Amino acid sequence: MRAARYYDRGDIRIEDIPEPEVAPGTVGIDVAWCGICGTDLHEYADGPIFIPPSGHPQPLSGESAPVTLGHEMSGVVYAVGEGVDDLTVGDHVVVEPYIVGDDVDTGPDSHDYHLSHDMNFIGLGGCGGGLGEKIAVKRRWVHAISKSIPLDQAALIEPLSVGYHAVERSGAGAGDVALITGAGPIGLLTAAVCKAEGITTILSEPSPLRRAKALESKVADHVIDPSSEDAVARVTELTGGRGADVGFECTSVQPALDTLFDALKPTGVLVVVSIWGHPGSVEMQKLVLKEIDMRGTIAYVNSHPATIALVEEGKVDLSPFITGRIGLDQLLDEGFDTLLHRNETAVKILVSPSGAGLD
Amino acid sequence: MRAARYYDRGDIRIEDIPEPEVAPGTVGIDVAWCGICGTDLHEYADGPIFIPPSGHPQPLSGESAPVTLGHEMSGVVYAVGEGVDDLTVGDHVVVEPYIVGDDVDTGPDSHDYHLSHDMNFIGLGGCGGGLGEKIAVKRRWVHAISKSIPLDQAALIEPLSVGYHAVERSGAGAGDVALITGAGPIGLLTAAVCKAEGITTILSEPSPLRRAKALESKVADHVIDPSSEDAVARVTELTGGRGADVGFECTSVQPALDTLFDALKPTGVLVVVSIWGHPGSVEMQKLVLKEIDMRGTIAYVNSHPATIALVEEGKVDLSPFITGRIGLDQLLDEGFDTLLHRNETAVKILVSPSGAGLD
Ligand SMILES: NC(=O)c1ccc[n+]([C@@H]2O[C@H](COP(=O)([O-])OP(=O)(O)OC[C@H]3O[C@@H](n4cnc5c(N)ncnc54)[C@H](O)[C@@H]3O)[C@@H](O)[C@H]2O)c1
Ligand SMILES: NC(=O)c1ccc[n+]([C@@H]2O[C@H](COP(=O)([O-])OP(=O)(O)OC[C@H]3O[C@@H](n4cnc5c(N)ncnc54)[C@H](O)[C@@H]3O)[C@@H](O)[C@H]2O)c1
Repeated sequence: MRAARYYDRGDIRIEDIPEPEVAPGTVGIDVAWCGICGTDLHEYADGPIFIPPSGHPQPLSGESAPVTLGHEMSGVVYAVGEGVDDLTVGDHVVVEPYIVGDDVDTGPDSHDYHLSHDMNFIGLGGCGGGLGEKIAVKRRWVHAISKSIPLDQAALIEPLSVGYHAVERSGAGAGDVALITGAGPIGLLTAAVCKAEGITTILSEPSPLRRAKALESKVADHVIDPSSEDAVARVTELTGGRGADVGFECTSVQPALDTLFDALKPTGVLVVVSIWGHPGSVEMQKLVLKEIDMRGTIAYVNSHPATIALVEEGKVDLSPFITGRIGLDQLLDEGFDTLLHRNETAVKILVSPSGAGLD
Repeated sequence: MRAARYYDRGDIRIEDIPEPEVAPGTVGIDVAWCGICGTDLHEYADGPIFIPPSGHPQPLSGESAPVTLGHEMSGVVYAVGEGVDDLTVGDHVVVEPYIVGDDVDTGPDSHDYHLSHDMNFIGLGGCGGGLGEKIAVKRRWVHAISKSIPLDQAALIEPLSVGYHAVERSGAGAGDVALITGAGPIGLLTAAVCKAEGITTILSEPSPLRRAKALESKVADHVIDPSSEDAVARVTELTGGRGADVGFECTSVQPALDTLFDALKPTGVLVVVSIWGHPGSVEMQKLVLKEIDMRGTIAYVNSHPATIALVEEGKVDLSPFITGRIGLDQLLDEGFDTLLHRNETAVKILVSPSGAGLD
């Protein structure tokens, strides 16, 4: 079968590799679609980061580069391993792409398996990837989805789960107002979850094309251009002087963090979703005198079932965020290059590893 | 009556002023003891900060310097104003020293009246102060206490409420482990509340005298000298490799904040109690990848009843923290000077405005 294999920074190869073995307790999946994530771009341009470099096996998977890439995937079950009796061939599924230790509690009440020691991701730390035609995944990490969700949209459930967990971390609910800085894929999908939960959304984003996407896709109730408007004054006005209840930092730039501290109401919650490459400067007096809660959020933890339900119930429409479909052969030229050069109209580019579904 | 009046930076005068009028809805209190707070020192050395300068009246009290100082007070009711029927002459009381607008909800379910617009403190923003022989306080801000609490210890209920609210903000409970950086009055009293709630306490403090006080007073289960020990390694060892559940930043210095980020477990809560004069540098990656909650806390809000109960039930012993007793005439020489020159054995110095109770 064909797969995109990460060898090293700047070195991703499309290769023929053996099909995975569907071992006991695992599920064999024909990958339908796999999204390209900012993390994949990061590994390509600046990595290896999560990917274990050649000769340094990941402690849990035992694998090192080359590894198959891709962790935002949907597909169809083609085989089930011994002991798997609650999924059958033909079921539509998505993958929660975790590699965690066998000793970690991953039960439905766990809220921290994603923070466990040596945690890594399928499609980065080994265990196959969604940028290959087939993958075998431990039953725990496979989630069945209704056939009412198109498989292309289903590939966006993984990044949507990031937004779901971010909103969960915020504690926000219906009637609240959220200020989201950054309308990249993560900001947009966080906004989508907010809207599904009845939260009013204000997106601050300097790119006019991204602001337009936020409005067209109906995930933004209001947009602000922070390069020409006073974002704090606009939020104050839009909230009748009160300030936003919650904020989501999805840019990793300092001015956005500063805006959030000023635009939040006292007791507001500021969720940091973005990954910063440097320390942030925090106005400690504002944190204290406004009793701000500044919370980190990473990936998802037992978030997939509720996220899938939002899509199944039609509360989130993922179709506006699919802006490209390519085959494995176009991965670097049309996928990575488009995204790396910050084409502002691109949100999610989906890859069909087998070529099925492409025009 | 005699009172300590703040005129300006470096200018506090002990003067004779008229007794307050016990207006309808207020309670007349004979002040027994009033503590000197770090904020008072700040106003003296670097202020006016909270205090409205002469000619710039505080919007709610309508007063400006000179104002009577002192907000950590206990006393005995000597008169009640019209309409006050649930307190009687002779009752022992403490004051929750707020000045807030009449339009603000200060009911028992409010969690943000302390963050309301133009909020200030009795003893800073006007409305009299505990460093005067008598004070008249709106009924809402007077809390009756059992006569089983000595009135000198009762003067520490105000700063203890700061610790109570900080612990409340942390969400910590019995069985948790707290790392507290700084064993000044605020760190010690926060530790006292932790212990009362069944939380194990580790205090990090470079001053040997303050570490000794933390151990003697039994508010610290463990102490760490961050100037000679690896604080993170000690916390890791003391928690069996897990890390602390919660942290309380009570120093306002960067190394303490850094230690807390490293010593907390994933999903740990970091409460910032200290007032920083400059921005803090925050390792955003740790905030995100460990899902740390960093929460500001200021003063107290509906915290006095529960704080008083802790003292009444004997769960907190405030006596070890009273390290001096003086009259108004010694306020500057023996009070402010001792504290400003950081006498490390001093925790709380109490003032008896009438001189009663002094040897
Ligand atoms: N926490 C997690 O689990 C998780 C998961 C995936 C991605 N991420 C991180 O989330 C962040 C966002 O990801 P993305 O793919 O959407 O990135 P992106 O780069 O596509 O989007 C960032 C957006 O912020 C905008 N921006 C720049 N300056 C701004 C300002 N001052 N105010 C408002 N907006 C501004 C940019 O124009 C851009 O549209 C990244 O840091 C990524 O690493 C986190
Ligand atoms: N949030 C609130 O409501 C509130 C209320 C009162 C006071 N405060 C603030 O709380 C803070 C503490 O008040 P305080 O009166 O206890 O102050 P303090 O100065 O007496 O105590 C600070 C302590 O920190 C110690 N310290 C210094 N560097 C350290 C390090 N690297 N690691 C550990 N400890 C270190 C010092 O030795 C000192 O004992 C102040 O900033 C004060 O303004 C906040």
